[in-house]
Amino acid sequence: MHPHRFFTLTASCPDRSGIIARVAGFIAEHRGWILESSYHADAAVEPVATRDEAGRYYMRIEIRADSLPFHLAEFRERFRPVAEELEMTWKITDSAVKKRVVLLVSKQEHCLYDLLARWQSKELDIEIPCIISNHDTFRGFVEWHGIPFHHVPVDASNKAAAFAEIRRIFDEVRGDTMVLARYMQILPPELCAAYPGRVLNIHHSFLPSFVGARPYHQAYQRGVKLIGATCHYVTADLDQGPIIEQDVIRIDHSDSADDMVRYGKDIEKAVLARGLRYHLEDRVLVHGNKTIVFR
Amino acid sequence: MHPHRFFTLTASCPDRSGIIARVAGFIAEHRGWILESSYHADAAVEPVATRDEAGRYYMRIEIRADSLPFHLAEFRERFRPVAEELEMTWKITDSAVKKRVVLLVSKQEHCLYDLLARWQSKELDIEIPCIISNHDTFRGFVEWHGIPFHHVPVDASNKAAAFAEIRRIFDEVRGDTMVLARYMQILPPELCAAYPGRVLNIHHSFLPSFVGARPYHQAYQRGVKLIGATCHYVTADLDQGPIIEQDVIRIDHSDSADDMVRYGKDIEKAVLARGLRYHLEDRVLVHGNKTIVFR
Amino acid sequence: MHPHRFFTLTASCPDRSGIIARVAGFIAEHRGWILESSYHADAAVEPVATRDEAGRYYMRIEIRADSLPFHLAEFRERFRPVAEELEMTWKITDSAVKKRVVLLVSKQEHCLYDLLARWQSKELDIEIPCIISNHDTFRGFVEWHGIPFHHVPVDASNKAAAFAEIRRIFDEVRGDTMVLARYMQILPPELCAAYPGRVLNIHHSFLPSFVGARPYHQAYQRGVKLIGATCHYVTADLDQGPIIEQDVIRIDHSDSADDMVRYGKDIEKAVLARGLRYHLEDRVLVHGNKTIVFR
Amino acid sequence: MHPHRFFTLTASCPDRSGIIARVAGFIAEHRGWILESSYHADAAVEPVATRDEAGRYYMRIEIRADSLPFHLAEFRERFRPVAEELEMTWKITDSAVKKRVVLLVSKQEHCLYDLLARWQSKELDIEIPCIISNHDTFRGFVEWHGIPFHHVPVDASNKAAAFAEIRRIFDEVRGDTMVLARYMQILPPELCAAYPGRVLNIHHSFLPSFVGARPYHQAYQRGVKLIGATCHYVTADLDQGPIIEQDVIRIDHSDSADDMVRYGKDIEKAVLARGLRYHLEDRVLVHGNKTIVFR
Repeated sequence: MHPHRFFTLTASCPDRSGIIARVAGFIAEHRGWILESSYHADAAVEPVATRDEAGRYYMRIEIRADSLPFHLAEFRERFRPVAEELEMTWKITDSAVKKRVVLLVSKQEHCLYDLLARWQSKELDIEIPCIISNHDTFRGFVEWHGIPFHHVPVDASNKAAAFAEIRRIFDEVRGDTMVLARYMQILPPELCAAYPGRVLNIHHSFLPSFVGARPYHQAYQRGVKLIGATCHYVTADLDQGPIIEQDVIRIDHSDSADDMVRYGKDIEKAVLARGLRYHLEDRVLVHGNKTIVFR
Repeated sequence: MHPHRFFTLTASCPDRSGIIARVAGFIAEHRGWILESSYHADAAVEPVATRDEAGRYYMRIEIRADSLPFHLAEFRERFRPVAEELEMTWKITDSAVKKRVVLLVSKQEHCLYDLLARWQSKELDIEIPCIISNHDTFRGFVEWHGIPFHHVPVDASNKAAAFAEIRRIFDEVRGDTMVLARYMQILPPELCAAYPGRVLNIHHSFLPSFVGARPYHQAYQRGVKLIGATCHYVTADLDQGPIIEQDVIRIDHSDSADDMVRYGKDIEKAVLARGLRYHLEDRVLVHGNKTIVFR
Repeated sequence: MHPHRFFTLTASCPDRSGIIARVAGFIAEHRGWILESSYHADAAVEPVATRDEAGRYYMRIEIRADSLPFHLAEFRERFRPVAEELEMTWKITDSAVKKRVVLLVSKQEHCLYDLLARWQSKELDIEIPCIISNHDTFRGFVEWHGIPFHHVPVDASNKAAAFAEIRRIFDEVRGDTMVLARYMQILPPELCAAYPGRVLNIHHSFLPSFVGARPYHQAYQRGVKLIGATCHYVTADLDQGPIIEQDVIRIDHSDSADDMVRYGKDIEKAVLARGLRYHLEDRVLVHGNKTIVFR
Repeated sequence: MHPHRFFTLTASCPDRSGIIARVAGFIAEHRGWILESSYHADAAVEPVATRDEAGRYYMRIEIRADSLPFHLAEFRERFRPVAEELEMTWKITDSAVKKRVVLLVSKQEHCLYDLLARWQSKELDIEIPCIISNHDTFRGFVEWHGIPFHHVPVDASNKAAAFAEIRRIFDEVRGDTMVLARYMQILPPELCAAYPGRVLNIHHSFLPSFVGARPYHQAYQRGVKLIGATCHYVTADLDQGPIIEQDVIRIDHSDSADDMVRYGKDIEKAVLARGLRYHLEDRVLVHGNKTIVFR
């Protein structure tokens, strides 16, 4: 959280010597001031005798906007040769451009209230162009906040049309990120595929335990002593996408499955809020089915 | 969380042998069904050779309402001789009678949104007869929920009158419990004295560290690696009342004092919600400046 | 941890009204002084209209030994009619009789050092009649502590004989509890069956995630953000027995599977020590494949 | 934890643009391979318009030893001009040179057993040239491990001489780091001053709460719901030195001060082990009375 406007460069490339020097050198050459930077070499890759055996290198760099003599378009133009030389996958974003986040909810209130509180206080400095739900429950609450609300019912007979409508709305409002804030419908594979790394879900278990429906009841049956929640990117494989954040809370034998549901809500909203923040600040880089999270 | 209506008996008395037998015997005699019960002997008291050296004994018992042949008034009448024999301080409450909780807030939203989400979903099954604030910030939000909102400004010149007004409102709505949900004014001693064990505060540090103003800035200066929050009963001694619940979250050198404020909000609302729940379920018994919390 | 000698009664029986009154009444009748007591009704059983629909009731009661006019043999004799009336499964133990705990280890040191440190300082007030290992690695260390060490090699060809020998030793030293302190062999089903609720294992994952071999490597592959450990009773179903205690620790993308192994050791030894203590203090009651842990 | 031999460069300097480019450029120029690197700008310094207002910049860089064409002496020679240009405080260490760590203990076993287990398994890859104690309690245990043991009694009459002797031993064995592993004597100011940033203590509270003697008893009196431990550098101000690591554990009303002492031991040894590891891996940079810990 810097008071300055800044650009965030995130990149990955094959590991080799001299990467930081090359990138930081480019920035320094233009007198760019680095506010924060993080680097990670994929630890699995050893020994590293030749280029071909090398692992992958990840980085995230925040640069003060007013320290550079140009803006994003020219940065992108000038940086391209460096990126090509290093065979990089990369992007750069501007802290002054708010991300557009569309929330999908069902009937549970905890994640919705939590995210709107953070949005209302500008702790989450985002645009929420609309909220979509398969129930009409929260229309009044959402509209009171001045946010458009779309009721898109989903049932066995209209699934394809319903999700086509959700996609149409998301595209129409130019959404950057879709957040399933305890949205109790499974997204169809084509929707997952359309927005890779842009749809976040909060699953109400400590994955990979208790995949699928009613995880707290599964946890109750197994007699675990901690329950958890997992924020992950949605992929076509249910509850199998790259994990962004997880946490747990202690329970004991005196807690019923309903008690676990109640305790779990506190973990779910905290984990979703943290995972979403990491995502929005471009702190999450995906590597296969895993994430690098530069906290 | 039982589906049944139940009575909750909480009591403390000088420790001696036979207390549980006497109390559980009374309940059994009337065919009362105990759903949950907890007992605690003040561990400090040793050796226990004579009555006079004995410590204090605490208990909390939930009895199914429909298992008893009478209701609270008659329970109180019949139990009185037992309680007198044991020199008990005691009370009994009815799960069907909702507690009346008045919230005091200032300009920070997180505890307010969190508590209203729990109230809206009946996770917190209480009445909120009104919300009082020294700012008008949340009037619309509160009134949208159908809860009366009172703006009682407080400044150096009107303190006595302002707190007299708060007290008048609290009494008028027959409040059971007052919750300072990040209310940024210090209650005058006479108000604290008027409602002992009925006013809860959330302090934004892990007490006894960082008493008073700007605890996150104090924590930042000291370079601690965890920050916390404390829910406690308010007494005339600022931040010194009996502690009900605490928790912490990890931070590191990269976190500014402002980051700590943000992280802290998540701990504050979770700790306040847990502490308040224990209080409302009559799980908290005060013993000098400490609490017994029968979770 | 009381300074007094005490008896610990643990029991379970069908739930009904009057159980506490009956048991506490029996104790009070003999002027027994209850130091600590805990009760739990199996929450799953609802509604409770008739005896047949009732759930199960669990209790643990500590009674000062010097407050009773008789000792264990006579307690057992006199309590039997009460227990029969309530259809109880029960036992009573004496804090003055040290439990006899046999440790099984392989080549990893952390749980062994940890448990011997607790034994050496009397924090764990037990007898360790011997330590058994499939390797000779720790002979010197164990023998330096004055504890007999048995090297029982296990390989594909001698499994039956090896485990018969382990069982012979355990019986010969009159072991109460067997602790697999990172013992890297799978016990045969007949050994598990011979000592139900008496063999504890520490599994190096947060079960039910990552059952079986190399759980940290499984965790690394899945990209979880927390790793854990589980102390459970051993049954013939590998890693499926009743869970006594669990805990987790945070890791991140920079941690290799080897780092996880290292972090995990700290959780393993802490979880095993806590689980073992609960077991030794008769705080763990088994209910199907779950545990009640009266902490 | 890399399988490679590596050099660790740690440095701090006034913040300005181009620091990473300059340092990483130097390393790249010599074809050095950076395994891991971390950077931190002192966030308190804003706005940063001129050099004089700038904050301080911290870094830690691991370089594969076999990627450089020279060793430490020549690295130091060649890097000096860069460091001078940036006005750096810096050092570089070699992972192949084991740190020499002297432990000071009293009568409590837990940190000693814990550290020796880690040393025995090479999890802590250090030399322990000797262990010093004011009691003779652990002589046998230490010597069994092949480590020299020095009994240096300390009492009111011989303090100066005793600590002079400790200092003599530490210098004689060429100690790098002194660890007070629950050593129950207060070091004299001149000893603290002689080894700044090289003496680690584990304090048995969550500082700044409960400074001084018997912190668990202070915690018990105050009725806190979590207890903790703090690993910090020792300075002449008792329990006031820069904090390296902290953690807490939950307790409740049923825990006596003695129970807290027992629970606390588990936190103390874990926190000391983590803090010591960070220190030994040159992950801790001191900034006034605070630390940067590059985990």
